[in-house]
Amino acid sequence: MKDIAVIAVSGGMDSCVTAAIASLDHRLAFAHINYGQRTEEKELQCFHKLADHYNAEKRLVIDLRHLAVIGGSSLTDHNIDVSAANLDNLDIPTSYVPFRNSNILAVCTSWAEVIGAKWVYIGAVNEDSSGYPDCRPEFYEAFQRVIDTGTKPDSGIRIATPVISFTKDQIVKRGIELKAPLEYTWSCYSSDEKACGECDSCALRLRGFQKAGFDDPIAYHKKPIYYKG
Amino acid sequence: MKDIAVIAVSGGMDSCVTAAIASLDHRLAFAHINYGQRTEEKELQCFHKLADHYNAEKRLVIDLRHLAVIGGSSLTDHNIDVSAANLDNLDIPTSYVPFRNSNILAVCTSWAEVIGAKWVYIGAVNEDSSGYPDCRPEFYEAFQRVIDTGTKPDSGIRIATPVISFTKDQIVKRGIELKAPLEYTWSCYSSDEKACGECDSCALRLRGFQKAGFDDPIAYHKKPIYYKG
Repeated sequence: MKDIAVIAVSGGMDSCVTAAIASLDHRLAFAHINYGQRTEEKELQCFHKLADHYNAEKRLVIDLRHLAVIGGSSLTDHNIDVSAANLDNLDIPTSYVPFRNSNILAVCTSWAEVIGAKWVYIGAVNEDSSGYPDCRPEFYEAFQRVIDTGTKPDSGIRIATPVISFTKDQIVKRGIELKAPLEYTWSCYSSDEKACGECDSCALRLRGFQKAGFDDPIAYHKKPIYYKG
Repeated sequence: MKDIAVIAVSGGMDSCVTAAIASLDHRLAFAHINYGQRTEEKELQCFHKLADHYNAEKRLVIDLRHLAVIGGSSLTDHNIDVSAANLDNLDIPTSYVPFRNSNILAVCTSWAEVIGAKWVYIGAVNEDSSGYPDCRPEFYEAFQRVIDTGTKPDSGIRIATPVISFTKDQIVKRGIELKAPLEYTWSCYSSDEKACGECDSCALRLRGFQKAGFDDPIAYHKKPIYYKG
């Protein structure tokens, strides 16, 4: 029998394709983190649709809304505007949630240790990303060492970041290859009925689809052209 | 003006003495984590008394009760008995909360990054501890690297573990030297009116006081002798 793996599933495209990849080798334990982001309701719906689609054996919704109380990000603080996309700007955008991925990995690792999972998958993307410090490979290498030193000696938990070096168009292509249900994913930071098409996250997603040569199956308010083939 | 430091304050003796040490050099931002432990109500009272005593400039109570949902520890799961103390047993006790300190450091670092604190203090104790993997210095060294790679480049946040190499009697002595209000601290894992005197945590605490030659100011159901001078 396949072993079980914890997958951090936000409901976005990257975590969906990560789940698709993990499903090839593992039984699945889906973890969703609510950190008080604006579009949480929509993301949670996507999480459950993805968990149904992949027949996840376990699912856990974790409340990290204290990250919204702490603030510091436009994703959780309505007093900070979500920056309009600027894909050439290498500054850390206002949507950066301070140290978010450490909080996510910490709780996923706790869960993995309790259920005996040997893997924690997370859909971090470095290249083509928005410049978040906690999406870089060296961050995950460092966190692996924290797991090695901070869990029971026989836990043997490994972090897997299968899409970290993918560009968004590679993620779209891999998702379509694996028949991942990209229609059940949500990326927009601003809106939860139709995607805005204009925030960082929409721009990266749309550019990915446009570069890959596929049509994005979700609904948009606006669908600007971010890539001319 | 002194800079501000985040202190993880459980309400126990180790974090109280850590706060006493931090107060020598910093303004204080006190963070308390509720992870669904049995004696949380008492610990939270201690936290607020300590925050008042040290005139903490900021205080934050963080809800990590999902760690209780995840389970795996006698501290949070009433179906697992709190083991009776056995100070010679080097196994990881049932009170180990899987990967707890990573969750605590992650959220304290998020807060530090938002408020501009350069330090996160935590009262981890390695020597004389109960054998938790996430109380060892190598765990904190590894987590420092996670902070260095996972926060904004100018954050410059450092972890401080000023009592990590202390024995419990050294913690008692240092606390008394610094006039730390040890009467406002709570260590017992089982009970929240009078301390039980018999769980791991009570045994370590009482042995520390007995070895240091001081009387513990809090009330106990039983006060066994753990050290004969």
